[in-house]
Amino acid sequence: MEVVNDILGYKNRKIFQNTDYFSFSLDSVLLANFATIRIRDKKIVDLGCGNGVIPLIMSLRTDKKILGVELQEKLFDLAQKSVFFNNLDDRIQLINQNMKDFANNIENINQFDLVVCNPPYFKVNDKKNFFNESREKLIARHEVEINLEELFTCAKKILANDGNFAMVHRPERMLEILELYRKNGIEPKRIRFVYEKINKDCNLILIEGQKNGKVGLKIEKPLLLYKDDDSYSDEYGSLLVEVAK
Amino acid sequence: MEVVNDILGYKNRKIFQNTDYFSFSLDSVLLANFATIRIRDKKIVDLGCGNGVIPLIMSLRTDKKILGVELQEKLFDLAQKSVFFNNLDDRIQLINQNMKDFANNIENINQFDLVVCNPPYFKVNDKKNFFNESREKLIARHEVEINLEELFTCAKKILANDGNFAMVHRPERMLEILELYRKNGIEPKRIRFVYEKINKDCNLILIEGQKNGKVGLKIEKPLLLYKDDDSYSDEYGSLLVEVAK
Repeated sequence: MEVVNDILGYKNRKIFQNTDYFSFSLDSVLLANFATIRIRDKKIVDLGCGNGVIPLIMSLRTDKKILGVELQEKLFDLAQKSVFFNNLDDRIQLINQNMKDFANNIENINQFDLVVCNPPYFKVNDKKNFFNESREKLIARHEVEINLEELFTCAKKILANDGNFAMVHRPERMLEILELYRKNGIEPKRIRFVYEKINKDCNLILIEGQKNGKVGLKIEKPLLLYKDDDSYSDEYGSLLVEVAK
Repeated sequence: MEVVNDILGYKNRKIFQNTDYFSFSLDSVLLANFATIRIRDKKIVDLGCGNGVIPLIMSLRTDKKILGVELQEKLFDLAQKSVFFNNLDDRIQLINQNMKDFANNIENINQFDLVVCNPPYFKVNDKKNFFNESREKLIARHEVEINLEELFTCAKKILANDGNFAMVHRPERMLEILELYRKNGIEPKRIRFVYEKINKDCNLILIEGQKNGKVGLKIEKPLLLYKDDDSYSDEYGSLLVEVAK
């Protein structure tokens, strides 16, 4: 089987993707830059890392080791390829495993200082594009393999006592997400709302919570992507992926 | 006792206030402009209306009758004065009553299509400025007479089946507020986050929920108050109170 890959450049990282399986999106770039990396943090994991975009970008912010867990073999292979291509195999470790199995492994329980995740956004019964997608895209976008409740169960298990769990999702599901954070003993501490333009509804949310953290939520400055004249905002411009095939 | 009042102009409304008791703030102006007024709505009430600023401003948006409930006699008197001064006594009705008693009155149960409230923001044990304030300001700012949980109990009682409950509050308490909405069967439907400037954390939230409403939250466009050059944003400029003593 011949696989045609794109290589995208993000700053000095080269990231392989195959648009039949998975195109990484702005969402992952934003999350990779949003999550708090504390000096004392030792273990970081990205649950459902896809083609590895989050570990690859986070490795620009820290020298700490980052783990990526990915169920889908084709995506895992792409991620592995990028990690080797960027000579990051000493800093990014990939595991081809279901995140539920990963979280049930006794060696991972209460171990992680930072867990990040860009989960599937759509419920299985949300039929939008359900049948037009490859199996790979379906799993990345719809809650076929894991739903939000199960994801939080995994995160809770593997988080260290004051570990952070950061995720990106859509605003329609914010209430459900906030409830799951608290239900699982992870107190929401930071939220950022992403708006395409100043006169548009929010289309993405970035959230971070702390396991057994104190109550105290900060809603951080808005992230606007475009200026009134349709040019990139300064922040978005600085985060932007430049295609460098 | 001599009372020195300020008269503030808001568009063509003249609003009495006395800064010893109560200075109405931006927050009330924003809420009065945020709450949804549906064509079919018949009964509107502002719980804890202070000097009447919300009914007075809302009466610019609708001809429907608006009720204001205010416990504190001095504030009620100020509100009454403004209502007469603006010749609005046929459209704004004020009641000098505790909102708990108001909500327990059988004539008010399940009656209101829209309930609005700018409640006290601080818990009683939050000592900030607690002892430097007049009794009137204390009650307006701190949860002395009513706390959030009790407020929601009142709102729930008086809301009609698909009635809306809109409020303004501070982002630190958003999680508590969202939980109380749902706990009381009022589904959050719209939120707007208010930011002073594009690079500042959110300092105010506007929320509206519907009693027995369907799940589906929209996070609306951000409300920025100032531009980068410190001038008013277009939206804030258009909402702004101009002092016209």
